[in-house]
Amino acid sequence: MRKIDIFNHIFPKPFYDKMMEVAGQHKDIGKRVRNIPVLVDLDERFRVMDEFGDYVQVLSLASPPLEVIAEADRSPELARIANDGMAELCAKHPERFCGFTASLPMNNPDAALSEINRVVKDLGANGVQMFTNVNGKPLDAPEFQPLFDAMAQHDLPTWIHPARGANFADYLTEDRSEYEIWWTFGWPYETSAMMARLVFSGLFDRNP
Amino acid sequence: MRKIDIFNHIFPKPFYDKMMEVAGQHKDIGKRVRNIPVLVDLDERFRVMDEFGDYVQVLSLASPPLEVIAEADRSPELARIANDGMAELCAKHPERFCGFTASLPMNNPDAALSEINRVVKDLGANGVQMFTNVNGKPLDAPEFQPLFDAMAQHDLPTWIHPARGANFADYLTEDRSEYEIWWTFGWPYETSAMMARLVFSGLFDRNP
Repeated sequence: MRKIDIFNHIFPKPFYDKMMEVAGQHKDIGKRVRNIPVLVDLDERFRVMDEFGDYVQVLSLASPPLEVIAEADRSPELARIANDGMAELCAKHPERFCGFTASLPMNNPDAALSEINRVVKDLGANGVQMFTNVNGKPLDAPEFQPLFDAMAQHDLPTWIHPARGANFADYLTEDRSEYEIWWTFGWPYETSAMMARLVFSGLFDRNP
Repeated sequence: MRKIDIFNHIFPKPFYDKMMEVAGQHKDIGKRVRNIPVLVDLDERFRVMDEFGDYVQVLSLASPPLEVIAEADRSPELARIANDGMAELCAKHPERFCGFTASLPMNNPDAALSEINRVVKDLGANGVQMFTNVNGKPLDAPEFQPLFDAMAQHDLPTWIHPARGANFADYLTEDRSEYEIWWTFGWPYETSAMMARLVFSGLFDRNP
């Protein structure tokens, strides 16, 4: 039986090099992902994948989100490099990678909308990836609604990845989260909060 | 088979009257609890309890926490009124109420420590109730440690109730929580965060 892993992270090499150039010192998740070889090293990835038999992956970028590592004027370029790299990986290794989820420059909604249309029409993306907050903003903010509308028009799914950092405190008297709570409990929490926001703001009524 | 409900809220009448005097306009949970008749009306409570056969309750105060409704100079008096009222209810209706969990004036740790000793020795309390935060402070703050130590010495449990309000925003760009997320998901989240804090701050190592 073929196993299809639909939420598996990677950094295409051209994107990784660019990310190290613009955000090589990023902390939190940024620091952690730099220390995971399989995120960049294909040989190492294939060695691990071989342990699981008939197993293929749908690729997506690892954290941090593009809008965290680059301002609105540079994030669109990063998205294009990432998505071109994803398409190239899928074309080169179809026996390993059966598809990919495109990344969007969410701090530049107009560019994100263009990128949606480009990755669907030109690159054959299977969907897009967003994060549970966009530099602290909720996904039901008005500027993101055209992106969800576009995905509904393309009839393709949106992957949503948790994004909370240690700078989100768990108590009103504090300014950061302790003991890794920000992701161990914070990521499931923020995912639930995000979904509640999308539901009650009417997204699924507008795009059933 | 007897059913013992160990986490059931009530406002003893003398406490309710005092609370309405000092915090009759309290919002959020304060507003909600004022509209639940069984929290004060014993006849109504007994009518509901009768539906469940051989069923008894361990009583505790309903939200909001004492430290939210009164400053440190008045919260100790509120605690005494509440706890005396609890003991009186248990003495008067032993067939209904098999015990109670005492309330503490957590914004006055010295008075809270005295109250622990009083409710255990004079009133026969089965434990104490705290909330997941004390006006925004975590329970692993140093000033609360003597209270946990005292409970360990008395070999009695501490009930911990969620306390997050709508003023705890779910996104860094906002100042309040929307769509009831603050309690539907926020209460379980804050309960998990609180327990993680107690564990990793070493409380259970100091008081195994």
